[in-house]
Amino acid sequence: MEKIFVNELKNHIDEEITFGGFVDAIRDKKWVMFVILKDHTGRVQMTIEKSEEQNQKLLDIMSNVTKDSTIKIKAKVVSNDAVKLGGIELIPEYIEVTSKAEELPFDYNNLEGVNLDTRLDYRWLDIRNDKNMMIHLVSSEMVRYMREYLYNNGFTEIHTPKIIGAASESGSEVFEVKYFDRSAYLAQSPQFYKQMALAAGLDKVFEVAPCFRAENSNTSRHATEFTSFDLEFAYIKDYHDVMNLEAEMITYALTKLNESMGERIKEVLDIDIVVPKLPFPEMKLKDIYKELEERYDYKIDDSLKNDLTTEAERLVYKLAKDKFDSEFMFVVDFPAEKRAFYHMRDEEGRLQGFDLIWRGTEITTGAQREHRYEEIVKNAKEKGLGDDVKFYLDFFKYGCPPHGGFAIGVDRLTMLLLDVPSVKETQFIFRGPTRLNP
Amino acid sequence: MEKIFVNELKNHIDEEITFGGFVDAIRDKKWVMFVILKDHTGRVQMTIEKSEEQNQKLLDIMSNVTKDSTIKIKAKVVSNDAVKLGGIELIPEYIEVTSKAEELPFDYNNLEGVNLDTRLDYRWLDIRNDKNMMIHLVSSEMVRYMREYLYNNGFTEIHTPKIIGAASESGSEVFEVKYFDRSAYLAQSPQFYKQMALAAGLDKVFEVAPCFRAENSNTSRHATEFTSFDLEFAYIKDYHDVMNLEAEMITYALTKLNESMGERIKEVLDIDIVVPKLPFPEMKLKDIYKELEERYDYKIDDSLKNDLTTEAERLVYKLAKDKFDSEFMFVVDFPAEKRAFYHMRDEEGRLQGFDLIWRGTEITTGAQREHRYEEIVKNAKEKGLGDDVKFYLDFFKYGCPPHGGFAIGVDRLTMLLLDVPSVKETQFIFRGPTRLNP
Repeated sequence: MEKIFVNELKNHIDEEITFGGFVDAIRDKKWVMFVILKDHTGRVQMTIEKSEEQNQKLLDIMSNVTKDSTIKIKAKVVSNDAVKLGGIELIPEYIEVTSKAEELPFDYNNLEGVNLDTRLDYRWLDIRNDKNMMIHLVSSEMVRYMREYLYNNGFTEIHTPKIIGAASESGSEVFEVKYFDRSAYLAQSPQFYKQMALAAGLDKVFEVAPCFRAENSNTSRHATEFTSFDLEFAYIKDYHDVMNLEAEMITYALTKLNESMGERIKEVLDIDIVVPKLPFPEMKLKDIYKELEERYDYKIDDSLKNDLTTEAERLVYKLAKDKFDSEFMFVVDFPAEKRAFYHMRDEEGRLQGFDLIWRGTEITTGAQREHRYEEIVKNAKEKGLGDDVKFYLDFFKYGCPPHGGFAIGVDRLTMLLLDVPSVKETQFIFRGPTRLNP
Repeated sequence: MEKIFVNELKNHIDEEITFGGFVDAIRDKKWVMFVILKDHTGRVQMTIEKSEEQNQKLLDIMSNVTKDSTIKIKAKVVSNDAVKLGGIELIPEYIEVTSKAEELPFDYNNLEGVNLDTRLDYRWLDIRNDKNMMIHLVSSEMVRYMREYLYNNGFTEIHTPKIIGAASESGSEVFEVKYFDRSAYLAQSPQFYKQMALAAGLDKVFEVAPCFRAENSNTSRHATEFTSFDLEFAYIKDYHDVMNLEAEMITYALTKLNESMGERIKEVLDIDIVVPKLPFPEMKLKDIYKELEERYDYKIDDSLKNDLTTEAERLVYKLAKDKFDSEFMFVVDFPAEKRAFYHMRDEEGRLQGFDLIWRGTEITTGAQREHRYEEIVKNAKEKGLGDDVKFYLDFFKYGCPPHGGFAIGVDRLTMLLLDVPSVKETQFIFRGPTRLNP
């Protein structure tokens, strides 16, 4: 590939190179034409002097070029301290228009008055906005480093089926698929299959893949299809091993992200990547409600204290900062009856699981899983689950090590990391009850 | 996590450790009980001397343990040259049965007489077979290094929607989803969306994700759901840039795979990882048919020579080895009419794309894409495509750089790499027209 990217130009001063980019702006002055070109790594100025006779052809070509067209040029890379964009300009000797843009339906550099639905209709133009593009570059990089942590710790990546035969956990919110002459369903999570991988002896597994939820709800945190970062690993002592791994993975990824992109993120989004300190603080649900009342006068009825309310989640952020100087907080000791049947309970019926709250929002529900056949069969029965989960129960019949795991929604993680209002803007292409395009 | 894995034991000689594993075998001798334990990294011997009085309790526990149960132990790691398994044995002082296995439906160490359907029904037991487990460890590692190559070359990972509003490319083989009060479909490939990412300015993108094909066929190479490794990148000169990137990525990944797992793969599967040499050879379709006839007396009717027949694909492997000492061969100059409308043609109508043949099987169809709005609209019309692709055509209306890309089926790649008979055995859980379980 011969194209040099903007962030590599400084290594090619005084060289003749091939460059391509979108036309970001044209400033046609009396004696000179300045053209700002961009690719995903940045912007560069192309300078065409009008006094030079051989430039007439280039000026003719550029006079027909619209903003957002793409061009290919051969040019000399020149160092010029007077140029604001990196002190570099491109002096072209050849220009070819590779794609001419029609007039855009809106100005993506100024999205304030543009309806979110319009932006999502033209998502490929919306992402040309520097800030919106940065969201996707960061999301990719964050997942890269979370994976890297897992690879370094002996995890294996699996790809579990998304078309499943039975509606599994909660049949009400599942999409139905016409599968030849029968019905199938779309997986709401890889939960059962990542546990199967441990019953198969793979010991430590993860998956980054779509999950599907037929929820007819429209909040900033929900989508009918989203990317889930799921992992599960065996031979844990208890659910604290799961919490520790999650805290270490997140800290590793944020550290690496800050090193690789911290400056660019600050520049484009005016956001600092906050690298957390280990260990993350941990509190019991009932102690949290006690402190929220004592510290912030947050009072709710006892009947609501079997889970974190949305407002309590928000206050946990404040509590985490005030009490522990942390942005993260593990919450433990939830009542077992509110949680899925595959979460382990101890002898007293206490849930062996946790939520992780970051910046006022739950990003993870994790747990040790019930791996003992008799116990998991009993738990399923208590929840009224029958034949639909029988295939899953069989995974534990022929030996299965103790294990646990969790999932993180990638789009929600990015939303919190970069202070984006909604997952509609962190998903590459959002899917909701009334949104199936593009 | 306190559990020490088998491949780490050599670093803990003479230490007291916690270990967990599946019971692989119990050899109950007169004076001593040997228990072979395994995790995904290997096997180790636990030795319980019967003469030692404090061992009576441990022997009682183990006398009730079945093969494939899992146990947790506290033990001393002892170096002992007489022990075949790595010269190490574990001397336990505490044993706990964490999961007791019922009698297995078949012996996964000896699968010769076991029906493939039975194996797939009990996939989690099938994968306990050393060779089958190795397939999944290798597949994960191969994808890891292909991704690593792309990250190192400035690619961004995207997650495109799998639920789509229109049946896109070829409506006949698409699964229909009940989406609230309307119909939606499952994406057959991320093709349109990865191109959208380039129109959005992301320049270099990849995705590793499921694809869905409602094909009612039952071959060793087909599945209704499979994992596709897809990429697309902008500012290419022509489709040779795409071929070069693919050859480099595969060579990088095979080199790293060989370094990290070559020995284990040889040991368990008796297979050598063959690291290719760059560049991969390239031939035109018509020259291939000419040489196949001259060299191997392969004659077919001219009317069949507009594509590679299955037999020709197989012979291309022989040709690649005989003529170029290569396992890979790029085939170019296919007639355009057989290919999708979004592949670019040159002025003479020649397809700007390629197939990559590895070991007698096509693993990739790649191409430069048509990025010019007028041309892509014309191509779509010629193929009789209407409103279903209109949303896609719009991606090219507002500027889009020249670009190309390809896809590799991960399961098929693993099949060829490890000489596995079918993707049914390289997919973690196979999905076919009559297979939806587990």
